[in-house]
Amino acid sequence: MLFQVEMKVNLPSDMPESQATEIKATEKAYSQELQRYGKWRHLWRVAGSYANVSIFDVKDNTELQDIISRLPLFPYMEISVKPLCRHPSSIRDDDS
Amino acid sequence: MLFQVEMKVNLPSDMPESQATEIKATEKAYSQELQRYGKWRHLWRVAGSYANVSIFDVKDNTELQDIISRLPLFPYMEISVKPLCRHPSSIRDDDS
Amino acid sequence: MLFQVEMKVNLPSDMPESQATEIKATEKAYSQELQRYGKWRHLWRVAGSYANVSIFDVKDNTELQDIISRLPLFPYMEISVKPLCRHPSSIRDDDS
Amino acid sequence: MLFQVEMKVNLPSDMPESQATEIKATEKAYSQELQRYGKWRHLWRVAGSYANVSIFDVKDNTELQDIISRLPLFPYMEISVKPLCRHPSSIRDDDS
Amino acid sequence: MLFQVEMKVNLPSDMPESQATEIKATEKAYSQELQRYGKWRHLWRVAGSYANVSIFDVKDNTELQDIISRLPLFPYMEISVKPLCRHPSSIRDDDS
Amino acid sequence: MLFQVEMKVNLPSDMPESQATEIKATEKAYSQELQRYGKWRHLWRVAGSYANVSIFDVKDNTELQDIISRLPLFPYMEISVKPLCRHPSSIRDDDS
Amino acid sequence: MLFQVEMKVNLPSDMPESQATEIKATEKAYSQELQRYGKWRHLWRVAGSYANVSIFDVKDNTELQDIISRLPLFPYMEISVKPLCRHPSSIRDDDS
Amino acid sequence: MLFQVEMKVNLPSDMPESQATEIKATEKAYSQELQRYGKWRHLWRVAGSYANVSIFDVKDNTELQDIISRLPLFPYMEISVKPLCRHPSSIRDDDS
Amino acid sequence: MLFQVEMKVNLPSDMPESQATEIKATEKAYSQELQRYGKWRHLWRVAGSYANVSIFDVKDNTELQDIISRLPLFPYMEISVKPLCRHPSSIRDDDS
Amino acid sequence: MLFQVEMKVNLPSDMPESQATEIKATEKAYSQELQRYGKWRHLWRVAGSYANVSIFDVKDNTELQDIISRLPLFPYMEISVKPLCRHPSSIRDDDS
Repeated sequence: MLFQVEMKVNLPSDMPESQATEIKATEKAYSQELQRYGKWRHLWRVAGSYANVSIFDVKDNTELQDIISRLPLFPYMEISVKPLCRHPSSIRDDDS
Repeated sequence: MLFQVEMKVNLPSDMPESQATEIKATEKAYSQELQRYGKWRHLWRVAGSYANVSIFDVKDNTELQDIISRLPLFPYMEISVKPLCRHPSSIRDDDS
Repeated sequence: MLFQVEMKVNLPSDMPESQATEIKATEKAYSQELQRYGKWRHLWRVAGSYANVSIFDVKDNTELQDIISRLPLFPYMEISVKPLCRHPSSIRDDDS
Repeated sequence: MLFQVEMKVNLPSDMPESQATEIKATEKAYSQELQRYGKWRHLWRVAGSYANVSIFDVKDNTELQDIISRLPLFPYMEISVKPLCRHPSSIRDDDS
Repeated sequence: MLFQVEMKVNLPSDMPESQATEIKATEKAYSQELQRYGKWRHLWRVAGSYANVSIFDVKDNTELQDIISRLPLFPYMEISVKPLCRHPSSIRDDDS
Repeated sequence: MLFQVEMKVNLPSDMPESQATEIKATEKAYSQELQRYGKWRHLWRVAGSYANVSIFDVKDNTELQDIISRLPLFPYMEISVKPLCRHPSSIRDDDS
Repeated sequence: MLFQVEMKVNLPSDMPESQATEIKATEKAYSQELQRYGKWRHLWRVAGSYANVSIFDVKDNTELQDIISRLPLFPYMEISVKPLCRHPSSIRDDDS
Repeated sequence: MLFQVEMKVNLPSDMPESQATEIKATEKAYSQELQRYGKWRHLWRVAGSYANVSIFDVKDNTELQDIISRLPLFPYMEISVKPLCRHPSSIRDDDS
Repeated sequence: MLFQVEMKVNLPSDMPESQATEIKATEKAYSQELQRYGKWRHLWRVAGSYANVSIFDVKDNTELQDIISRLPLFPYMEISVKPLCRHPSSIRDDDS
Repeated sequence: MLFQVEMKVNLPSDMPESQATEIKATEKAYSQELQRYGKWRHLWRVAGSYANVSIFDVKDNTELQDIISRLPLFPYMEISVKPLCRHPSSIRDDDS
């Protein structure tokens, strides 16, 4: 089941550099693991911003919540979620 | 070059049924042709709405405008565009 | 799988009374059938408005879209959707 | 009398971990007590967020205010309230 | 139980003058009856607009919905509702 | 002359408890004095929030500004003001 | 007593040319009469729009409502009102 | 003197095709004349929309208003205006 | 050339009292000097807020920027700017 | 390929003066280098604000992201991006 998720990162301006570096490294490793498992199906940077557009492929709403709430950057992001489903005009097998 | 495009359809309530049916059929055919050419890379319905989330893969801004402004539903849609690029944490070859 | 759905009805001011009455009657029958099947789990009127707050219990995003897009009032409603899941503090068995 | 309440938690980024843990534990105990008393009728997590959708069943506006203003997380939440009442199409006995 | 209600009137520009006049007269009579019964406790015009601020004193959410949804101008108004209760600093006996 | 004023309090999360307590006590005393003088005609809590809806009865805009800008909580509130006047449908003598 | 009023004109696209011309002429005459009486103290066009910024000098909220609600363009305008008073740094005698 | 102007076109869905064609042709001729005179310095299409971003070089606010209010599409556009001036980091002679 | 400027002051809650007092005194002196020179033509307090509505009379956009960006409170204000010009219905000589 | 980028600077009020000065100097040098290379084609100050309107001429979305995310002020700016393309009414050779 697919969800489009947009995440916009707002790190507090007083977060120590070292802490920011560590959080970002953990986030990267975690996100790549989820990509390898096929849960985080697409991940794009929105050009000109510290934000991404992502497509998640999860079993249900609960798994989506589990994954997103464990993101190391979760406390520092504005997140919006849209449930997706197959579009009647789609011709692509894996767009659902 | 990738763009995320969100389209929300608002047909006028006084559009004759037959005209709506024809526009939607033309839109479908046109969108499927663009999908076959690889220009309209992904097309998802947003669940609970008459809207879609799409990923376009075009040569440049001009081609994006050419494609979108020729959509038969173009005059009846709210459209928002986000330029995308490769995310440094992406592991997927075709996410760019 | 649960979704909170808010629907706000905006009938065009030039819709004939008889057409409005018919649409509302069909909507009511359809909504009650969905309630009996357990798909439309809760349905409340928002006091002071022509709007409702609903909880749907569906198999997946696709079923949500199927149900909502077939509502007779669908073309005349602003609809917002929130995917829900179990809250860690909930003590109620059926809140998930 | 029913109210839909949405709560979005924004803990200050400089709140000590121990203080956050304590507030959340108190909040959880308090919310479960209110659920047992039937005041906090439903409690769902909004997937992909640190937010919930709740249904309260209270005697009047005053009791709603008493309950919500005593939530340990009250100073750290954006809260929106919608008064609910029975929907004419509802078939469920306890949807009011 | 008190509610603050704001109503902003938007009559369609093609409504015949006679129909508008009749609706407004019915609205006025109905609102004055509700004032006499003590249900519509205050009614003020917002200066510089076709809008009002009102205070309703009703038994519960259901009665609020009954009253507002029967307003002849109901289909032509944007309405917002805020549940009120006694303020701890109020000294006025009837502010609750 | 009447004004509706809505005030939403946002105390900084790092304000010492004692300072908050003192400001609130001063605010309460000041508001009750203004109520006794008839300047602050109504004061209601918005249920489920740290906000109020108030009706002020002042000589002119200048007096409104004098009163509001001297509120001890003034620096910590979002405030919105609506000038009111008699509604042609009002039957209540003191609604103006 | 001064008020800033911003008015944005939205004429329905199907209003006959002759009707629009007449309304605008009546509006102009009415506004100039109010300027001569000193009630409509300033009137500026917002460059690049069909909108104005105005300063009214009226006895009270009621007079403001009387004047604005009688504007021939009143049903076709979005109007926002801000009550003004003397600024402590103003050196101009008539800025109040 | 430079202004950035964004224009978004919303033609009424019931405007006859021939009228739309004529308005657009007149608009094009008028805009090209203004470009030749150096008044309309830049004109870009916003990709994926029926909107443009423009830079005007005018004598003053009055000339800006004269030019924009005479656009044939003026009644059908949402327009926003930003006054521009030389940026202290600009190295380009004609960016002012 | 006239501009309407609205300024809303948001001083950080941790700014020392003495620093706030000094900034406000400098702001006052600077604003009064600009008023004497005829650059800051009008200055009003918006009643019920820490905000003002002002009319500036400047040579061009550059002078507007010079004046506003040198305001001592500039870093602490939300500022909106509207270019003004003569309204065709104005009868006042100096409204342009 | 052209993009309009609007940048609004919000420096934290507790950033040391020396740090702000250094960031701004680096930003200026970097922006001027990009202007000399033709990447940052236009740069204007929005009068009355700490914001700019810019036109970038880049190879693709990736280059836009590379340039913007390396701006020294990037963490302190709200940035909005609009992809541009040639307007059919443009007569200027380099407006594309």
